[in-house]
Amino acid sequence: MSQKSTQYVRDNSRRMLDELKEFIRIPSISTLPENEPDVRRAANFIADALRKAGLEHVEVIETGKHPLVYADWLHAPGKPTVLCYGHYDVQPPDPLELWESPPFEPTERNGNLYARGAADDKGQMYMHIKAVEALFAINGSLPVNVKFLIEGEEEVGGESIAKYVQQNPERLKADVALVSDTELYAEGIPTLCIGLRGLIYTEIEATGPMRDLHSGMYGGAAPNPIFGLIELLAKMKDANGHIHIPGMYDDVQPPASAEKQSWDNLPFSEEEFLKNEVGSTRLTGEPGFSVLERVWARPTLEVHGIGGGFTGPGAKTVIPAKAVAKVSMRMVPNQDPEKIVAAYKQFVKDNTPAGIRTEVRVLSAGPAILVNPDHPAIHTAARVFSEMLGRPTVFIRSGGSIPIVGDFAKFLKIPTVMMGFGLPDDGLHSPNEKYKIENYYTGIMTIAQFFEEYGK
Amino acid sequence: MSQKSTQYVRDNSRRMLDELKEFIRIPSISTLPENEPDVRRAANFIADALRKAGLEHVEVIETGKHPLVYADWLHAPGKPTVLCYGHYDVQPPDPLELWESPPFEPTERNGNLYARGAADDKGQMYMHIKAVEALFAINGSLPVNVKFLIEGEEEVGGESIAKYVQQNPERLKADVALVSDTELYAEGIPTLCIGLRGLIYTEIEATGPMRDLHSGMYGGAAPNPIFGLIELLAKMKDANGHIHIPGMYDDVQPPASAEKQSWDNLPFSEEEFLKNEVGSTRLTGEPGFSVLERVWARPTLEVHGIGGGFTGPGAKTVIPAKAVAKVSMRMVPNQDPEKIVAAYKQFVKDNTPAGIRTEVRVLSAGPAILVNPDHPAIHTAARVFSEMLGRPTVFIRSGGSIPIVGDFAKFLKIPTVMMGFGLPDDGLHSPNEKYKIENYYTGIMTIAQFFEEYGK
Repeated sequence: MSQKSTQYVRDNSRRMLDELKEFIRIPSISTLPENEPDVRRAANFIADALRKAGLEHVEVIETGKHPLVYADWLHAPGKPTVLCYGHYDVQPPDPLELWESPPFEPTERNGNLYARGAADDKGQMYMHIKAVEALFAINGSLPVNVKFLIEGEEEVGGESIAKYVQQNPERLKADVALVSDTELYAEGIPTLCIGLRGLIYTEIEATGPMRDLHSGMYGGAAPNPIFGLIELLAKMKDANGHIHIPGMYDDVQPPASAEKQSWDNLPFSEEEFLKNEVGSTRLTGEPGFSVLERVWARPTLEVHGIGGGFTGPGAKTVIPAKAVAKVSMRMVPNQDPEKIVAAYKQFVKDNTPAGIRTEVRVLSAGPAILVNPDHPAIHTAARVFSEMLGRPTVFIRSGGSIPIVGDFAKFLKIPTVMMGFGLPDDGLHSPNEKYKIENYYTGIMTIAQFFEEYGK
Repeated sequence: MSQKSTQYVRDNSRRMLDELKEFIRIPSISTLPENEPDVRRAANFIADALRKAGLEHVEVIETGKHPLVYADWLHAPGKPTVLCYGHYDVQPPDPLELWESPPFEPTERNGNLYARGAADDKGQMYMHIKAVEALFAINGSLPVNVKFLIEGEEEVGGESIAKYVQQNPERLKADVALVSDTELYAEGIPTLCIGLRGLIYTEIEATGPMRDLHSGMYGGAAPNPIFGLIELLAKMKDANGHIHIPGMYDDVQPPASAEKQSWDNLPFSEEEFLKNEVGSTRLTGEPGFSVLERVWARPTLEVHGIGGGFTGPGAKTVIPAKAVAKVSMRMVPNQDPEKIVAAYKQFVKDNTPAGIRTEVRVLSAGPAILVNPDHPAIHTAARVFSEMLGRPTVFIRSGGSIPIVGDFAKFLKIPTVMMGFGLPDDGLHSPNEKYKIENYYTGIMTIAQFFEEYGK
């Protein structure tokens, strides 16, 4: 353990928190046009912060939408290069009335900092910058080469950064990426996320009659595209969560037995998960798989909505001309999204009810990500993390998708260290989002330490 | 045939059309708050028209929403009493850009009058008033007793008139009701509608998790109420249109063989119905039943929409806390809505997927109506209609529901003569609604003649 960087963070903790608060006060809501000046202000704030920390080539890069911020420091020859990623944009704060303190006035309460973006991702990404600052302050240089790429569109699809990564593999060349947009498995447990599910998001448009029909006049003879979708989708997945698209499970790579065993050792209570997180009468899913396996390592199919009919208050007896279902599938390692998309389209074609025409639109299709825990960067991160928190680092997965991690893998051919310091109850995207202040400091220290050890 | 009333209509045709146009120019759109003064203006217009025609006790009756208009003439002792029903409100004209002439500026084109409400129901209900006027003009009195009850909420649920009929059976006492809100089976074919399907309209609310969940984090373990509804509804009806609610078909009274035979003799082309009316790739429904049987005499179940999830543009990976399906069933004669509602609720209960809670809300439940074609009023109407158009009257049913006909049956214990002069392509509720001008005159003559013959 470097006593120096830890001491530096302790000595500067108040200032480091005040800076973060100043950053958080900028309501950089990327989805709202009226906040565009704030989004730009946040980009400039970050550019300044990178400059002050000691980074070079700081650039606010214009895109079709919100700017990217780039910076680097490349004076550690022979040492690895770390690409630090984060985002400076936030979700809208609605519903405002549920906030106990104003969303853009960061407020300390119970050891937490309450504000929109406190955890997601302002507080987490700012740790990277403060870690670099600490190392410069102590050593006058960094133990590794670093590049920063910070975006302002994470909450609205991240289109610009995806394009930028694809088009600038040389500039972004690195040995590993570092992302702090995940969380500890539980308070005090050092956690590295090494797996993400992929996501295929589609729309199925079903067409029945040529125009909306009255269900009295035509019901019994005219095909109803809503019911057509119901028939089709009911065939796609059964009550056990088993997906009936041919080939769906062919390439599924189950977690290695060591990984599976480590999940069994995680403090997980199915009862508490059901009661405190899901809140339904029981959990569902494939029999024979644990809850963590089901959400981390099994493909799923979900219907998010069916539009096109009547859903307003009261009664309308319409057989609509068209209906659209939003259907997504989560992919696990070794599944090829293109192959699954093809099988899915074929299934829709083969099972479209008589009288109905269907069209499948694929909105996005990204594969699952699995990072090798034996990669030197992961190995080092796990060791440092473990020493910092005083207990073994756990390797978990997430059932969600972080598209940028896939882009780094695809276009830069590098793995990502997903090392986050949030907590499961931080309330990302919700009212009273918070970030534990102590974890902010721990994060800065851990990341500084990770740079030092990875540079050895 | 009374040459006199026919001659009177011919002599006054231009004025009768001009009056109708004046009436139609009032945009009495019952669903839009900004048109409330117009709705009232239309009620007063009708009250005036009834007075001018020679009716007595004309009254604009206030309700919780739009006024009813009542009038009567009861000076034909020993003669039957006819209760004339119609509505003076109309649907909104949207989408405006599809109208070839302004919706509230009635325009003559190709022998039709184009305007919102031309057929539904201003043109049709005004015929009743003009028929009475003609008879007064010729004879100074009426051959039957008449009562008029005209509402302004038909397009928004008709709550006020339903209540009024229930509460005023003595005032509305009659031998038969007359409703002109239906159509000729085809141009030139005298048509009486003697059957209507009943309607049970429900919402099924399905609850899964306690709040909206991210499908990445929870997909595979958390129950999805949208998929729960899909599973449930797919079990309720199969691809052949057969409803699997126990007891659904127990009480179904099939049409008498004579009625069924008469349907087989109607000019009906399944090919044209598919091509010109439905416009899908094929028709659906129960095998072994003709199209007319399926839409007129078989129960159906339709899903009109599923709300609660995400149906906007783009992708949102939500497992919603709640979802609501709008589900209706059409009932046929001899089915008891209460019995069916109970069986439906039981089915939902028995088939709700694990992890999901469901609640059924019944928005309305009205039985099917079947009028005895041998009732003297129906018999007379059929004979008069046949003489007027020069070919046999056909008895048809409608797959839809006219709730007021059910209320007349239930609270006044009287049958309804459903004698309309619209045409199947009149475009009710659509842009370029029309009413054939010649049918307007024919309607007035036929109704006057019906009063005369029914009074004999």
